[in-house]
Amino acid sequence: MKKSLGANPLVYPTPVWAIATYNEDGSSNAMCAAWGGICCSKPPCLAVSLREATLSHGNIMKRKAFTVNIGTEAFAAQVDYFGLSTGRNVDKFAATGLTASASTLVDAPFIEEFPLIIECTLQQVVEVGLHTQFIGEIMDVKADENIIDNQDLPDIELLRPLIFSPVARHYHGVGNFVAQAFEVGKKFRK
Amino acid sequence: MKKSLGANPLVYPTPVWAIATYNEDGSSNAMCAAWGGICCSKPPCLAVSLREATLSHGNIMKRKAFTVNIGTEAFAAQVDYFGLSTGRNVDKFAATGLTASASTLVDAPFIEEFPLIIECTLQQVVEVGLHTQFIGEIMDVKADENIIDNQDLPDIELLRPLIFSPVARHYHGVGNFVAQAFEVGKKFRK
Repeated sequence: MKKSLGANPLVYPTPVWAIATYNEDGSSNAMCAAWGGICCSKPPCLAVSLREATLSHGNIMKRKAFTVNIGTEAFAAQVDYFGLSTGRNVDKFAATGLTASASTLVDAPFIEEFPLIIECTLQQVVEVGLHTQFIGEIMDVKADENIIDNQDLPDIELLRPLIFSPVARHYHGVGNFVAQAFEVGKKFRK
Repeated sequence: MKKSLGANPLVYPTPVWAIATYNEDGSSNAMCAAWGGICCSKPPCLAVSLREATLSHGNIMKRKAFTVNIGTEAFAAQVDYFGLSTGRNVDKFAATGLTASASTLVDAPFIEEFPLIIECTLQQVVEVGLHTQFIGEIMDVKADENIIDNQDLPDIELLRPLIFSPVARHYHGVGNFVAQAFEVGKKFRK
């Protein structure tokens, strides 16, 4: 017998992403978002949901672009700060000592020190409720050499992305390898 | 200097969800999806993307409902099998020995043995490209008592949800607690 926990956004895992955009004056902003995920393989797209009240919401609407900078264990405090403050009052890059680098592909900055960044152009805007969902087409993914494996893919154990538990508001790291996907389930084939 | 990895869906973490639906004849199906996330707080909504070619896609279009059953370490092989087979040819519940229980809230079954399930009604259908994104309003979240913490929330360390690495196709578990969100970043406040 399962216990009802109510109509709440209790979903696992959720990501911890820093969404970076340009402000109207050309300065850079970053916010923290956990409501997002991949939403298409071809073209490769991801979705991230922001409240209309945020500075980043307006920035994306104007520039039609943003970057996703994957929050990692090493930058837990910085990405958390992005969610505690507003770019209307502070320069979050100056406060954290991080560097905003200009993307050459999309009209948005990325965070130089973060090991994995995804450059997106805006494909669709979907009004869901309190949150607006921005669907971004992934134009490129860029990674630091020291997190890339021998197949030229990010190694999740080297990247060490944060995992957010909604409502409880905990950040966890990634644990051990469990199994190879599209493989471990074959035992149920007749 | 970052290395370009191309326009690929390399995003971390991504979830491992079993999406359960009713077939036309009233039998139950489940598929595995990693392209999803929360997309709104009020009303609480999640998004999951499926290809039109899947049986589940048609099922959701017809019944306007689905459940998300969180894939966990204990059920890695079962949820993986859901992604290896099609409900057009096999009864996936019979093959894995899992139980399809009828939701009393939405027109979809859930997986009795999975410790955390989310019951959704269809709010919106968004065509993105190869994938269709289904936005589901969360009507209830139900959990086994043995994964609920003393604040009546799922404990991620007891739930042990899987984390999927796209392209590399690895399942990992959840690691150690890293920090309290909306707290650890306060040190950057002036």
